[in-house]
Amino acid sequence: MNPSSPLAQDTRTERDALGDMEIPADAFYGIHTARAMNNFAVSGRPVNQQLIQALVLVKKAAAQVNSEQKRLSAHRAAAIINACDELLAGRYQNMFTVDALQGGAGTSTHMNVNEVIANLAIVQLGGHPGQYELVHPLDDVNCCQSTNDVYPTALRIAAIRLLRPLCDAMSSLQEALQNKEMEYADLLKLGRTQLMDALPMMAGQGFGAYAKAIARDRWRLYKAEERLREIPIGGTAIGTGMNAPRAYSYRMVEKLADETGLGLCRSDHPMDPIQNMDVFVEVSGLLKSAAVNLLKISGDFRLLASGPFGGLGEYTLPPVQAGSSIMPGKVNPVMAEMAGLTAMRVIAEDAAITMAAASGQLELNAFLPLISESLLESLQILSNAVQLFTERCVRGLVVHEERCSANLRNSAVMASTLVAELGYDEAASIASAAIAQSRTPEDIAEERGLLTRSRIEQLCHPYTVTKPGIPGQEEGTHHGNE
Amino acid sequence: MNPSSPLAQDTRTERDALGDMEIPADAFYGIHTARAMNNFAVSGRPVNQQLIQALVLVKKAAAQVNSEQKRLSAHRAAAIINACDELLAGRYQNMFTVDALQGGAGTSTHMNVNEVIANLAIVQLGGHPGQYELVHPLDDVNCCQSTNDVYPTALRIAAIRLLRPLCDAMSSLQEALQNKEMEYADLLKLGRTQLMDALPMMAGQGFGAYAKAIARDRWRLYKAEERLREIPIGGTAIGTGMNAPRAYSYRMVEKLADETGLGLCRSDHPMDPIQNMDVFVEVSGLLKSAAVNLLKISGDFRLLASGPFGGLGEYTLPPVQAGSSIMPGKVNPVMAEMAGLTAMRVIAEDAAITMAAASGQLELNAFLPLISESLLESLQILSNAVQLFTERCVRGLVVHEERCSANLRNSAVMASTLVAELGYDEAASIASAAIAQSRTPEDIAEERGLLTRSRIEQLCHPYTVTKPGIPGQEEGTHHGNE
Amino acid sequence: MNPSSPLAQDTRTERDALGDMEIPADAFYGIHTARAMNNFAVSGRPVNQQLIQALVLVKKAAAQVNSEQKRLSAHRAAAIINACDELLAGRYQNMFTVDALQGGAGTSTHMNVNEVIANLAIVQLGGHPGQYELVHPLDDVNCCQSTNDVYPTALRIAAIRLLRPLCDAMSSLQEALQNKEMEYADLLKLGRTQLMDALPMMAGQGFGAYAKAIARDRWRLYKAEERLREIPIGGTAIGTGMNAPRAYSYRMVEKLADETGLGLCRSDHPMDPIQNMDVFVEVSGLLKSAAVNLLKISGDFRLLASGPFGGLGEYTLPPVQAGSSIMPGKVNPVMAEMAGLTAMRVIAEDAAITMAAASGQLELNAFLPLISESLLESLQILSNAVQLFTERCVRGLVVHEERCSANLRNSAVMASTLVAELGYDEAASIASAAIAQSRTPEDIAEERGLLTRSRIEQLCHPYTVTKPGIPGQEEGTHHGNE
Amino acid sequence: MNPSSPLAQDTRTERDALGDMEIPADAFYGIHTARAMNNFAVSGRPVNQQLIQALVLVKKAAAQVNSEQKRLSAHRAAAIINACDELLAGRYQNMFTVDALQGGAGTSTHMNVNEVIANLAIVQLGGHPGQYELVHPLDDVNCCQSTNDVYPTALRIAAIRLLRPLCDAMSSLQEALQNKEMEYADLLKLGRTQLMDALPMMAGQGFGAYAKAIARDRWRLYKAEERLREIPIGGTAIGTGMNAPRAYSYRMVEKLADETGLGLCRSDHPMDPIQNMDVFVEVSGLLKSAAVNLLKISGDFRLLASGPFGGLGEYTLPPVQAGSSIMPGKVNPVMAEMAGLTAMRVIAEDAAITMAAASGQLELNAFLPLISESLLESLQILSNAVQLFTERCVRGLVVHEERCSANLRNSAVMASTLVAELGYDEAASIASAAIAQSRTPEDIAEERGLLTRSRIEQLCHPYTVTKPGIPGQEEGTHHGNE
Repeated sequence: MNPSSPLAQDTRTERDALGDMEIPADAFYGIHTARAMNNFAVSGRPVNQQLIQALVLVKKAAAQVNSEQKRLSAHRAAAIINACDELLAGRYQNMFTVDALQGGAGTSTHMNVNEVIANLAIVQLGGHPGQYELVHPLDDVNCCQSTNDVYPTALRIAAIRLLRPLCDAMSSLQEALQNKEMEYADLLKLGRTQLMDALPMMAGQGFGAYAKAIARDRWRLYKAEERLREIPIGGTAIGTGMNAPRAYSYRMVEKLADETGLGLCRSDHPMDPIQNMDVFVEVSGLLKSAAVNLLKISGDFRLLASGPFGGLGEYTLPPVQAGSSIMPGKVNPVMAEMAGLTAMRVIAEDAAITMAAASGQLELNAFLPLISESLLESLQILSNAVQLFTERCVRGLVVHEERCSANLRNSAVMASTLVAELGYDEAASIASAAIAQSRTPEDIAEERGLLTRSRIEQLCHPYTVTKPGIPGQEEGTHHGNE
Repeated sequence: MNPSSPLAQDTRTERDALGDMEIPADAFYGIHTARAMNNFAVSGRPVNQQLIQALVLVKKAAAQVNSEQKRLSAHRAAAIINACDELLAGRYQNMFTVDALQGGAGTSTHMNVNEVIANLAIVQLGGHPGQYELVHPLDDVNCCQSTNDVYPTALRIAAIRLLRPLCDAMSSLQEALQNKEMEYADLLKLGRTQLMDALPMMAGQGFGAYAKAIARDRWRLYKAEERLREIPIGGTAIGTGMNAPRAYSYRMVEKLADETGLGLCRSDHPMDPIQNMDVFVEVSGLLKSAAVNLLKISGDFRLLASGPFGGLGEYTLPPVQAGSSIMPGKVNPVMAEMAGLTAMRVIAEDAAITMAAASGQLELNAFLPLISESLLESLQILSNAVQLFTERCVRGLVVHEERCSANLRNSAVMASTLVAELGYDEAASIASAAIAQSRTPEDIAEERGLLTRSRIEQLCHPYTVTKPGIPGQEEGTHHGNE
Repeated sequence: MNPSSPLAQDTRTERDALGDMEIPADAFYGIHTARAMNNFAVSGRPVNQQLIQALVLVKKAAAQVNSEQKRLSAHRAAAIINACDELLAGRYQNMFTVDALQGGAGTSTHMNVNEVIANLAIVQLGGHPGQYELVHPLDDVNCCQSTNDVYPTALRIAAIRLLRPLCDAMSSLQEALQNKEMEYADLLKLGRTQLMDALPMMAGQGFGAYAKAIARDRWRLYKAEERLREIPIGGTAIGTGMNAPRAYSYRMVEKLADETGLGLCRSDHPMDPIQNMDVFVEVSGLLKSAAVNLLKISGDFRLLASGPFGGLGEYTLPPVQAGSSIMPGKVNPVMAEMAGLTAMRVIAEDAAITMAAASGQLELNAFLPLISESLLESLQILSNAVQLFTERCVRGLVVHEERCSANLRNSAVMASTLVAELGYDEAASIASAAIAQSRTPEDIAEERGLLTRSRIEQLCHPYTVTKPGIPGQEEGTHHGNE
Repeated sequence: MNPSSPLAQDTRTERDALGDMEIPADAFYGIHTARAMNNFAVSGRPVNQQLIQALVLVKKAAAQVNSEQKRLSAHRAAAIINACDELLAGRYQNMFTVDALQGGAGTSTHMNVNEVIANLAIVQLGGHPGQYELVHPLDDVNCCQSTNDVYPTALRIAAIRLLRPLCDAMSSLQEALQNKEMEYADLLKLGRTQLMDALPMMAGQGFGAYAKAIARDRWRLYKAEERLREIPIGGTAIGTGMNAPRAYSYRMVEKLADETGLGLCRSDHPMDPIQNMDVFVEVSGLLKSAAVNLLKISGDFRLLASGPFGGLGEYTLPPVQAGSSIMPGKVNPVMAEMAGLTAMRVIAEDAAITMAAASGQLELNAFLPLISESLLESLQILSNAVQLFTERCVRGLVVHEERCSANLRNSAVMASTLVAELGYDEAASIASAAIAQSRTPEDIAEERGLLTRSRIEQLCHPYTVTKPGIPGQEEGTHHGNE
């Protein structure tokens, strides 16, 4: 977090309303950043890089527009634009030194960006850091702007940019699950409800159910982008647009839409997106839905792969690392655990976002930096986790036919197929007897003389049982074909 | 929770796999319900009435379809349908006696419904409760059904039915806010960021920002209905459809769609909605977004109405009750508090829904009753709270022009309008001096000879400042008209 | 929620600062209650009964003290005390008609109590409801009191009263688990980490670990009571004690301590407990710890009882009800599910409590009614769930020796015992071979000539392995005995 | 996260059960770490440094004990101990390369530590990284250990070490608040309930209430340490102690207690702390209580400092940085916002901890790395935030006497003092008239001829009103002095 060398003894003096302060002579940040570094030494982590990039993008567009519209001289604009390009190429990231956990509604991050751009531009123009008469962080870099419209604009851009790879990762996961659905379309296994032996099913059907859930996630996340596209740029401090001409606002949206290719549009009442954070709660809520699906699926994988001998043992997940420092040969479902753990993290980030969003007051939400950190983090870790889980767990998963057969065969679930013919109470009695005597319901039913063996075989054929219909009855006898 | 009189000494005996049990002779519920009453004496609250109603609706449709398709005799079907109609008319609600907090994935609630319907039908056919040879709760009432497809089908119907009044309530709230937007379109007041004096704004603009947020809520909730429409009826125990002919499933969806008018459609892979609960997490997440907006708006109302003398005092909320048992004359913002408190409750219900949904395992989610209770509760209380808040707080709210003027006049916010002309640093110096000397920035600027009084008046006209543009500059000098 | 008959046409008129209102003539509540009923028609649920009882208790003590100290005439005091005694005996509960979800920091509930007591007292004195010149709800019943000191005082009393049965329930659960620990002290089974086969253990050891966790819960809940004992009675509206003489406050604490036997003590700065809600967050956090243990234990029970054939099958939980409306003979772990579901509810209530507690402002927390409802609910449902889980699940649980043996025998976990002798890498190679060939690690080790059969038997004796020490090495060779 | 230069072409080959892998030749981590780096590329953040330090501490103690007890040769032990000392001095932190969000219950972090220590020791013995025959990460560094006992042991040590500075920070905050309590013991101001004008109070009384809440936090956190002291070292994989002699366990606890000075003690049933995570939920719950207090206090500061002109304006918080990039002279309550934002983060971490802790299964909790990251983060950020808030906000806070007087004078709160003399209803009528006519209740009362001016002055003296007692009545007339 300390970007200047500890040996640097050269400093320059900067001044603000609170007085003078020494800044490392070669630092591209300035006094506002330096004060914030001292004020917010909380987490030791820098602000999310994706937000910084999006802020720089806004600054570049503003310099272009302000130059076009004659509020900024061409040579200052050129220097600012060059500075932004350097930052967009990934240089000088260590100059963004304000802590991720900060008060002030994002002003300190924004000031940090303004100062770094200004000083980079100053150096390009032959000055040295701090010569703000060459390029001023506020009068020039921030011309027509306020933290309060720039920051949420940048956050929306950063969020959309991270949503897209997440949608891609979800798409790959869906595809991998669908491949398993096809691969195991005919592998018969035991279905379980409340963890208890239930009815037969095809292994592929289970993967199909997972794929459907992930398809919903994709659709939801894809639609969420729409809401993020509305940006309040030009609203300035409270959304009224003071200090930002209409021409500036319209042109900024055009520029940003062109530059990013993200379909951005202008809020018709910027006071709203500046103070209301429900859109981020909505998006986070959708990430939470995806997290819940990920917890469900990864949890099922862990259950079905449990054992390999003293558990269900129906799946084998691809081994990716040794599992124990004391138990040799142990391999654990670490990719599924990683997916679940990441999902829990996403759910916790949602709690942070909800609380911060609910704590806005009047014309601004002071806790926007927490919303930003939590939302961008959620997007990133969910993308990474889904991608790794798909590649290193789902794709290589193997269903054990032999173990599936054994588990199914040993259960008493076929009693259910007798209900339509014998009634619930009789079938229940048969099932109880089967469990108690460790025999099959089929045997008990035959022994009791309730059904012939051939009828039993009709009723209890497991392949039939995995499809709609009453066992032993023709579809369509009642109601014609479908 | 004990629907039978404690004095009732007459009982009948029922039997299940666990043995015999005495049931109050005139109870319409049966042994499965009675066991569940003992097992789940947790909260003392009954299951949500809306869920019961939707379950009965499914039962009625099933009797109709099973009769049409010859799986149920006409006279049994008629008795079942009559019984359902009585329940749908609101009778015998005290027979639904299982606790809201129950294990078993909803089976006990479902059994309760099956038993009450069967016994009501039996009585209609001239029998007495418990004569299940006349109408059997499982073989007849539950024919082709399982808790696992019926329960989520009913929950989706109940949820959509509660979503609609919520959308209506949101619509009324939006309209009430828009009325205030128009009413106070020209009332100048102080805007505040981070609770500190910021820039002037029109009071109406603030209401407009709230209205936009609520408009998003309406849209989101309206769209959420789409996802709830897909019902897994016919999937039976694990979604494979065992014991439910295809013809039954198709007809059930038709019937339920007709009966409810809700646009219901059939899941093409019922195993998915039976085991995956992400849709409820999604809907709850949207309710949470609405709750966050409600917290923000109601919190702002409480702030702006604070005082009346020792606070901001800019709003007066309609008095609806005396505020204190010790301080006479005190009136509190209780409707805004009620709205906020309800929003917190909705956020907490979301935590329950998320956790329960994430805890599904394999072919079923055992915690579905918690999802159901929490989701339906959220929908109901949010509807009620929004409606009451709109009627008893928003509609009668008054903005105090005099207090707004005084608060604005006393602040030093006009210094911001000088930035474009004098630069940030000079304007900051003026603002500091104004605050320190309790004078206006305009006076300081004039005194320092930086601007003429007439130029100052051009720059600092508050009405201008509430619109886009740089104070004192013509729009369009740079860029033509818009 | 509507306690007066809809047919009742007789009303009386009451008046407050907002004007006149018709009240059902025979209602014991009055105008403040009636307004609140209309304002807060949110959840349809009444306020928690335990809170009402505790409020009445405070009112009774106040009447006694105010009579002793000559602020209340003897005959009014007697009537009030009699009224309280009737309510404490459980009568007229239907007169507490304000909704559980209410704005106003509890004032409406408090007014409801004041009014019901006053009217009951009035009737006793021969008047009819509404004749407040006989007994006034505020001047008499509420003498020296404010909602703001009475409500949290009552909440603390109610919470302690519910904590005690919870501690008892926890104690029974711990004892039941310890009984299982002894019962199965010598039953060897497979331990599992990350759901994968790990090392052998005694079934009893597992129950012992659960019992330890529950013992911590007991201790924590027991200690939590200390914090709840400090009551702010006498602080009145903001904690300064305006309108409450010191003699009153001291005597009230004495009286309440005597009456309840709960070791109550007086806050030495009542402004603190009136505005700061951290104590309820603390207690709820401890309930959440207990909920986490309950989720863990009940989840393990569900896993270990899964099957019975296609799962782990090591436990059999006592059957308490039929499990399925479609699968006869199915028995589900519904008591464990109920315990887990209740635990989730407790965790969600904690979210409500946290948010409400964090939303206090200045001298009061307006959201206290949510804290109250959520905390008392958590205490009650956790008590009930723990008690039912203990009685109907833990006590009758059976561990299957045969299944435990089979699961252990089939695993390759004994490879771990070879590490100390052969090194981790060699042992890992043996384990892999054993798993691949479905043989025991012992066989592989012997086949490879690495160890003699007798040495293997020394190393791999499972009973030894469940105790501390390196397999095959004498304890104490290095370091003497312990 | 990639500690080896991308240009490094020299690699060494390591092998595990999954096959060979190239490792950068000079990396001190090995193949287990390298696999985990690939598997868990989720957050881009390393594991919490405090956990690494505590793990190294355990490793050092184990080398000492294993050497003493003759399971490890003296020269290997010496090399390992030296390696640990280097790491404890803060070197080679960039070798801890596994992602903070990882599956596997902490095994990968633990393997990383074992490998780095082994390779450092190897280099000391003249070997080169990877020559594990010199020092083996598992057979030597991990002798008698398992992730499952080492990791929670280290986590408890790390947590206690972070608890102590937090307690110190809380202590400073309490002291700073108490200083303000004394400083403003006689400054009269308006108290507010539900944000509405309530009763007079001394500014110091408010600080006193905050100080009491913080004192509870201190006490709770101090007591929490007790629970963390019990460590499961020696329990190895599932708590049975397989591979760890009793003598080892006892000596390890002694060594660690000595080395750390933390009063550590041995769990008498290590299976419990290895699988049950309730202690971390408890501690996190207490941090959440502290967070709630911090939110309350910092929120009050923001309210009371709002304005400075168009808000309450009663406090001035020390300015620490410029507040706006567009509004010159604006100073925001950024330290209070930072405190609140950090508190929200702590509450969100609690959600993560709760969910992870509740997800443990059987003999282990696979999600322990999430518990660890969240708990240690909470402890650190809360310490930092409390310290910065105390130093940069609380200590320099100033209460404005003039503004406090004006706010109080303008309110109608003195009507409350008339209740005891005139009754609630008459006092309410006076208050309403006073508010309507913008006059004082005193004037109205006099005008109505209800009280003489001198009696009014007795009743309404604000200093008296901030103390217990009925205005205008002598304490002790009823009950003697106290």
